[in-house]
Amino acid sequence: MRVLVVYAHPEPRSLNGRLKDFAVERLRMSGHDVQLSDLYAMCWKATVDSADFPSRTAPHPLSIIAASQHAYATATQTADVATEQRKLLWADTLILQFPLWWFSMPAILKGWIDRVYAFGFAYGVGEHSREKWGERYGEGTFKGKRAMLSVTVGGWAEHYSERGINGRIDDVLFPINHGILHYPGFDVLPPFVAVYQADWIDDARFHVTLKEFGTRLDAIGHTPPIPYRKQNGGDYVIPTLELKPGLSAARHGLAIHLADAAEIRSVTR
Amino acid sequence: MRVLVVYAHPEPRSLNGRLKDFAVERLRMSGHDVQLSDLYAMCWKATVDSADFPSRTAPHPLSIIAASQHAYATATQTADVATEQRKLLWADTLILQFPLWWFSMPAILKGWIDRVYAFGFAYGVGEHSREKWGERYGEGTFKGKRAMLSVTVGGWAEHYSERGINGRIDDVLFPINHGILHYPGFDVLPPFVAVYQADWIDDARFHVTLKEFGTRLDAIGHTPPIPYRKQNGGDYVIPTLELKPGLSAARHGLAIHLADAAEIRSVTR
Repeated sequence: MRVLVVYAHPEPRSLNGRLKDFAVERLRMSGHDVQLSDLYAMCWKATVDSADFPSRTAPHPLSIIAASQHAYATATQTADVATEQRKLLWADTLILQFPLWWFSMPAILKGWIDRVYAFGFAYGVGEHSREKWGERYGEGTFKGKRAMLSVTVGGWAEHYSERGINGRIDDVLFPINHGILHYPGFDVLPPFVAVYQADWIDDARFHVTLKEFGTRLDAIGHTPPIPYRKQNGGDYVIPTLELKPGLSAARHGLAIHLADAAEIRSVTR
Repeated sequence: MRVLVVYAHPEPRSLNGRLKDFAVERLRMSGHDVQLSDLYAMCWKATVDSADFPSRTAPHPLSIIAASQHAYATATQTADVATEQRKLLWADTLILQFPLWWFSMPAILKGWIDRVYAFGFAYGVGEHSREKWGERYGEGTFKGKRAMLSVTVGGWAEHYSERGINGRIDDVLFPINHGILHYPGFDVLPPFVAVYQADWIDDARFHVTLKEFGTRLDAIGHTPPIPYRKQNGGDYVIPTLELKPGLSAARHGLAIHLADAAEIRSVTR
């Protein structure tokens, strides 16, 4: 497989840095091709601004969507953005390695998404009309590729449990797993979540974590993805994109966007 | 009142820019003191790195938490961070004005949170032990202050409805409202969400939006906050911080962290 690891932590010797090193080595030893985007080492520009659209001459107000569409379509994006897009097209598997800071990704990684996810590339793909609202959520540029988060999380696992105060980890990660990965087409694997306390992890716990991570990495090519529903798979009303009545009748909250177990069985049978 | 508006869009003539201008003017005309942090105009540094901790001399690996704690406690933070912290302490009300990019805030605003929210200031506040897990979620540095998101959102309102494909807007915003605002103590007002389509908004719709926004701004001092439960209010088991059995029995998903209507009535009666 061809794996792109995008990694966001300023300290190579951090838990995240060590998990990134471990992943790259483990995957290469298993015979996979690996590319690494080490955003801090690359001094990645985090902020979307007019400098991202060097061919833009109009005195009109900057519309990010229109400028992104034009730059992508005319191959006038900045070189750093185009390079990352090529890596995404090359890869069949994407791993994002980052610490959960304030219940989301570090700014530098959010800025990688904001800039690399161009109109026509990661959104604005396919017909947009009252009959079809684009190729999204299971379709799009990354259809058929796999993605997995590897996140480190402070606090206790219970704080992220079904009734934990921080919110269920699957709900906290929904804007990323569903909104950033499934939206442009990825099959999203269950996240690998390393829980630590107070910014440290002892050696015994670290080795357990590596063992668990290794097992996940070894299985990355055949782990069943999170069964998010596809936008154009018949489950949503077009164009309001509301889940059709009767589906997920026994589910609530963000989990309604998972296919019911019976539906999953009927698909895989 | 003293209102801090933090605004994140690169184009002053954008919908976000116009909403920011409107908010600042409306609040000032109502007699409030307003400070504005225009992150793009300030060239805000979005990325946390070792340059944020200029007094750090140790050759040890950079721990963001430890470095942040030390810099905050010894008043050796960078000037930009300290200035924003002073604005937060000055304000009794915070408004974050931003476009929802990829179901979260623009990287430059996330970087404002990542950098300004120091250990000892926005987290790591209060006793942390098995008897108490800090002053969080309704307590902390910003206790008694109010905060409100003003976000612009692409697509249709239905896409963010109870069964909409993007996820219910309250769930999508939970990591921000609950995790970034309620965590360090803010009372969080219901968000003002301006829904637009395809990066434009016509004049008629814009004026309706301004009218609605004006109503929200006029009421900002007395709008009832989202009834998030307080960590140390007796609803969560310490130290696992799981919601106690029986509470929110009729709720599911992230909404369990709202107090039940009956509980709210009993508090306000």
